[in-house]
Amino acid sequence: MKAAILSIGDELLIGQVINSNAATIGRILTEEGFKVTSVLSIGDDADQIRQAINDLLDSNQVVISTGGLGPTHDDITKQVLLGLFGGTWIQSPGQLEIIRSIFEKRGRTVSDLNRQQADYPSSSRPLINEVGTAPGLWFTRGDSDLFVLPGVPAEMKFLMENRIRPLLKEKNKGRFIIQRTLRTTGIAESTLAETIGPVSGFLPDGATLAFLPGFGGVRLRIMIAGTDRQWMTEQLNQIADFLIEKAGIHYFAEGDDDLEDVIVDLLTRHQQTLSLAESCTGGLISDRLTNVPGASAIYLAGLNAYSNDAKIKWLGVTPETLRQHGAVSAETASAMAAGIRQATGSTYSLSVTGIAGPSGGTPEKPVGLVFIAIATPSVLHTFRTIMPGDRRQFKERVSSWALNHLRECILNQLKS
Amino acid sequence: MKAAILSIGDELLIGQVINSNAATIGRILTEEGFKVTSVLSIGDDADQIRQAINDLLDSNQVVISTGGLGPTHDDITKQVLLGLFGGTWIQSPGQLEIIRSIFEKRGRTVSDLNRQQADYPSSSRPLINEVGTAPGLWFTRGDSDLFVLPGVPAEMKFLMENRIRPLLKEKNKGRFIIQRTLRTTGIAESTLAETIGPVSGFLPDGATLAFLPGFGGVRLRIMIAGTDRQWMTEQLNQIADFLIEKAGIHYFAEGDDDLEDVIVDLLTRHQQTLSLAESCTGGLISDRLTNVPGASAIYLAGLNAYSNDAKIKWLGVTPETLRQHGAVSAETASAMAAGIRQATGSTYSLSVTGIAGPSGGTPEKPVGLVFIAIATPSVLHTFRTIMPGDRRQFKERVSSWALNHLRECILNQLKS
Repeated sequence: MKAAILSIGDELLIGQVINSNAATIGRILTEEGFKVTSVLSIGDDADQIRQAINDLLDSNQVVISTGGLGPTHDDITKQVLLGLFGGTWIQSPGQLEIIRSIFEKRGRTVSDLNRQQADYPSSSRPLINEVGTAPGLWFTRGDSDLFVLPGVPAEMKFLMENRIRPLLKEKNKGRFIIQRTLRTTGIAESTLAETIGPVSGFLPDGATLAFLPGFGGVRLRIMIAGTDRQWMTEQLNQIADFLIEKAGIHYFAEGDDDLEDVIVDLLTRHQQTLSLAESCTGGLISDRLTNVPGASAIYLAGLNAYSNDAKIKWLGVTPETLRQHGAVSAETASAMAAGIRQATGSTYSLSVTGIAGPSGGTPEKPVGLVFIAIATPSVLHTFRTIMPGDRRQFKERVSSWALNHLRECILNQLKS
Repeated sequence: MKAAILSIGDELLIGQVINSNAATIGRILTEEGFKVTSVLSIGDDADQIRQAINDLLDSNQVVISTGGLGPTHDDITKQVLLGLFGGTWIQSPGQLEIIRSIFEKRGRTVSDLNRQQADYPSSSRPLINEVGTAPGLWFTRGDSDLFVLPGVPAEMKFLMENRIRPLLKEKNKGRFIIQRTLRTTGIAESTLAETIGPVSGFLPDGATLAFLPGFGGVRLRIMIAGTDRQWMTEQLNQIADFLIEKAGIHYFAEGDDDLEDVIVDLLTRHQQTLSLAESCTGGLISDRLTNVPGASAIYLAGLNAYSNDAKIKWLGVTPETLRQHGAVSAETASAMAAGIRQATGSTYSLSVTGIAGPSGGTPEKPVGLVFIAIATPSVLHTFRTIMPGDRRQFKERVSSWALNHLRECILNQLKS
């Protein structure tokens, strides 16, 4: 069954607000087996709202709109709907009670404007909103349902989960979608596509595969629609196994997990520890690792050694090394990694030194040049690359590239 | 003049990706005086793409689409456009050169699939993409322009700013919008609104003021539309002066500048230096500072001292202090700040210690408790708060709160 999302509000058009509501609604519709055909954002304009609702209801079994239900002059959605579907205003006693209690808690009195929030067109059914003042509205036309929700994310989410999801389940009896997302890194989208080969070879009917590239690598998203959970799960896992084998060392995690999650998990399970010495990434790798709950069990310390003095004093890099090879060199990276590992007594250490730019580059050592070193109990590796991008992009790409090398070195060490 | 945004990609419909590109494009179109009438997201579906482009070009002078220009099987936008506008494939030598250089830097060979990225329909003009492999495409039909961009945010932004903004300026001769965004921090939106008073008192016709709250504080965006740059600029500056005076110490920067930009600028101008000792923020403050070009001139070193051992060994925090007051205490924060300042010889130092959660809290020291210390040449300040939010929100809020205190301490020191 088809579904569409309508987002109403001038703030969405001028770039003031990012439309995160549409992503939440799209996710829930997809989970309940609906095919979302479009997301349309329009302004607080009566003609546009009227036309959009008519058009979307003509070609979808479910339309969910957000926005324009507030109490101020620019919120016109409810009035437009009364005109479109007919009827008169009815006050919802249940919603009015909630409005009273919300205002009471804040020590404010309820105005007429606030009370009007409990009104709904008699051509609709109200969906009581327990976390805000405006109820959701449920209209039907032929086989299609229109759900109208406030734009405040917490209220929209409450109504989607508690009021609309059960109605969607009822409407779309039996049919649903399952999915898995595989994360890869260190391989270009086109190379990965060539490695995997033509999708017709391994995708059954009802299954889709999407390549989603980003800074940290390419995500592979597999989706299967159907009614038979067992068959669908078997198919999904077969496809995932096939893709994981094809991706090889480039596959590192599933879903929302990132490289830092994999590393914290690996080290926690093997009771090993890590220390960092960052120069050009300036603490970003440390920041990423400490976003993972439980990182404190494996992460001993990190030094953001921006100056040469700090590299000498804290990491034991010799002035000779710096003079002879420069701060951005395999030799300095090695000394940094060895130095922080010795100082902290960690199992592994990772060091990074490079030229983030925009200035500081030379013909021999251009902006983007970066060296990392990884010290393990048995060996010290160094890697070199030239990373494109502005200062922030450089830092993000280098951090993912370095974390991926660290992951591979840990895996190799554990194997040996 | 009217404009519309078309976002192409299944990932936008199923809620996997939040459509932030539309906000960036909407902002730029608005700045150039265009009225954005709608944002439409659709899937990678040839019929839908064809119909959407036809419909949007019928009623808008500018249509900007993103997505579906990648090299894999699910990227079909370019093929659909060739069908719609006619023509044959032409290879852009400029783009091919960039593709070659990107692959060369990464030490990879260019495949046929990669080379095809440089192809564009002869019915369009290519917009050379210097930061990625796919060029933008520029089609015209009657008075309307269609710009087709890749969905990767950095590439979309590059093409919008460098290729399309100049064309928009040219197209919309005369009428434009100017704006300033003032950044405040440490004051709630409602308190700031009350401090400023009713907008009718100081906003002339054609001017708007928006309150944009976020993690780092509230942004005040002033916009003025018109054709007379001098009058508009005078008005804009008058309003900004008024707001800056009202916001007082809470105002800290303009536009995209953040607290770290202000601090790097302040210290650079006064030839002073900074060091950091982070525990619960795990390197985020260091990461933010080193996002600023030129930070290396003022930032000596930072220690991410996650473990007690690191605090003792590197910062000179005594085991007694840790035993008596705990790692999360004003005493430990003070010792950390004093320790890193002494070790590096920096003018100022900032230390942070707290409980990011989700575990590790106690009734006496709950999750969210945080202490910071700031050492200046004359005094050592400590501050305490309880910060709400999940682990990542906690880190972001603490980093802004700490950087703002650092900014105020530096300003006070410079005054004295």
